[in-house]
Amino acid sequence: MAKLKNDRLIRALLRQPVDKTPIWIMRQAGRYLPEYREVRAQAGDFMTLCSTPELACEVTLQPLRRFDLDAAILFSDILTIPDAMGLGLYFVEGEGPKFREVISNRRDVTKIGVPDPEQDLGYVMDAVRLIRAELDDKVPLIGFCGSPWTLATYMVEGGSSRDFYKIKSMLFADGDSAHQLLTKLTESVTAYLNAQIEAGAQAVMVFDSWGGALTTRHYREFSLAYMQQIVDQLIREKHGRKIPVILFTKGGGLWLPEMAASGCDAVGLDWSVNLAQAKAQIGDKVALQGNMDPAVMATTPQAIQQEAENVLADFGNGSGHVFNLGHGITPNIDPDNVAALVDAVHERSVQYHQ
Amino acid sequence: MAKLKNDRLIRALLRQPVDKTPIWIMRQAGRYLPEYREVRAQAGDFMTLCSTPELACEVTLQPLRRFDLDAAILFSDILTIPDAMGLGLYFVEGEGPKFREVISNRRDVTKIGVPDPEQDLGYVMDAVRLIRAELDDKVPLIGFCGSPWTLATYMVEGGSSRDFYKIKSMLFADGDSAHQLLTKLTESVTAYLNAQIEAGAQAVMVFDSWGGALTTRHYREFSLAYMQQIVDQLIREKHGRKIPVILFTKGGGLWLPEMAASGCDAVGLDWSVNLAQAKAQIGDKVALQGNMDPAVMATTPQAIQQEAENVLADFGNGSGHVFNLGHGITPNIDPDNVAALVDAVHERSVQYHQ
Repeated sequence: MAKLKNDRLIRALLRQPVDKTPIWIMRQAGRYLPEYREVRAQAGDFMTLCSTPELACEVTLQPLRRFDLDAAILFSDILTIPDAMGLGLYFVEGEGPKFREVISNRRDVTKIGVPDPEQDLGYVMDAVRLIRAELDDKVPLIGFCGSPWTLATYMVEGGSSRDFYKIKSMLFADGDSAHQLLTKLTESVTAYLNAQIEAGAQAVMVFDSWGGALTTRHYREFSLAYMQQIVDQLIREKHGRKIPVILFTKGGGLWLPEMAASGCDAVGLDWSVNLAQAKAQIGDKVALQGNMDPAVMATTPQAIQQEAENVLADFGNGSGHVFNLGHGITPNIDPDNVAALVDAVHERSVQYHQ
Repeated sequence: MAKLKNDRLIRALLRQPVDKTPIWIMRQAGRYLPEYREVRAQAGDFMTLCSTPELACEVTLQPLRRFDLDAAILFSDILTIPDAMGLGLYFVEGEGPKFREVISNRRDVTKIGVPDPEQDLGYVMDAVRLIRAELDDKVPLIGFCGSPWTLATYMVEGGSSRDFYKIKSMLFADGDSAHQLLTKLTESVTAYLNAQIEAGAQAVMVFDSWGGALTTRHYREFSLAYMQQIVDQLIREKHGRKIPVILFTKGGGLWLPEMAASGCDAVGLDWSVNLAQAKAQIGDKVALQGNMDPAVMATTPQAIQQEAENVLADFGNGSGHVFNLGHGITPNIDPDNVAALVDAVHERSVQYHQ
């Protein structure tokens, strides 16, 4: 195994010294890039883009050609797992993901199986291998998945939801079925992430996009407990190198100490959390990833530089910070503003690593 | 002034002893009630319903005829203020509120004035007076308004928003204009709430529906600082009786100590916050209002009773808790489930007040 030419991300996730703060951006491969929109149009539909390794590899690498990013992240979708379970994922323009089959009760839960990553999701592993070959150890590749709770919301609601009444009815009135579903998802997600690691992912991230919709009691029981199981079962070292794992619950600012106690290496933060406060709370246990308000990306390079400085200053001195937005970058952003952000983070973070 | 026949709400907000935990429900006058839908249909459109004191009074009182609630809340909309500023509020079925005029820059901000409550929003004050007369001191009447920040989001975005990119651009790149807008809104809201109090409101609540969309720094600067000004300028006592003020920031669980330090009497909590933790944090300074997950209302009376017990047990012994949902009740709820909740809270809270 060759050595990573830029290992800032891995080092920061492990809270080892770095020369400057690493940065990558959630959805860095995405619609704000004209070259992405071109490949997306060529693919025809979104799932074809995800399931064609050459195309997924191409869009994964696009932002790295433009910006001095410290990591690549696999281009894929969190819903490939329920799709591989046979629920029939499809996308309606402007409406988000939908499933042809919906999980409504215990019988539906009993029917679904645990996908075999190489058999049923081989296109993802092929993409990982292809990206690693193309990356040539320039920067690390991050693998990812959705959290069991987040996947379950889409499977029970049949798509995106605002209030989650269907799945919450299951939590409140038929908790056993919910636990059975989440157990299957946890087994699936663990195997999926471990297969990504075997295929070449050098760090992994669990996206709990909807954990913040829960009560504290339900978050612990139906989301965090399952992420904890995943963390416990992941491959954490390969060829003598650590594989860091990042947990991100959007809207999870109230639960940082519990997330940090899961044994993960890093906690992702949305922008509502103050990074200085988070560091004081859990910075002795884990690295922190985030957390600039994505809305600033729609303004000017000057405002972006200013806010990047605020975020860097909030974390302050030392390693253990991976700069990111607090949520994914949106399609309306000017790529020049992304360049301004990446450069600002690298330039202005040097002072915190001396 | 006659004495309130049921003063549980006021006593709990002031952390004085009560026999059982009072309960009211955000949006208790609303579309889940068939009798509301009838009046709403009769009114034709939503703004006619809000601006006709007899109709607003009628729907305010409807839930009290069905349920043993401990408070009435004025039926109105938080956007009456920007409407009175001349922005032209209208409602599109299924899309929420919209404005004909939008605030985009400093010049737009300069043009708007501060409405005179009795002149420009007399229909609200008339409704308050009418409701008080009809209530005959059975339970207290809660007045309310939107927070300056929350009103500003609608005025700048032109309606509801998911990402708040327009107004956040103002915060990041033209903070002075944002402050000027928020200053005018604060003056307007303060006069409006004080007029409601003069007209007969016996407690008031500030709804900061969108404060949770902000960074901690922006929340302090652009939302809480203005709510603080309102709290400082409200009429807090009338005819020898305290007028309690409740602050509610949806998604504000990270900022409870700062909210409690504003001088308000009570803090409203959404369901993500654990009530026991909130009580430990700020229960010695303020009363707490909330915070059952509204989703449980779509299940069964048994599940509702169980969750009500969980919430009551989280607060535990003593006064200082006003039971409510963590957000408004939704149109899909069976009124029988509301009856089950109200009765469960009254019956099962007695043990905590002995």
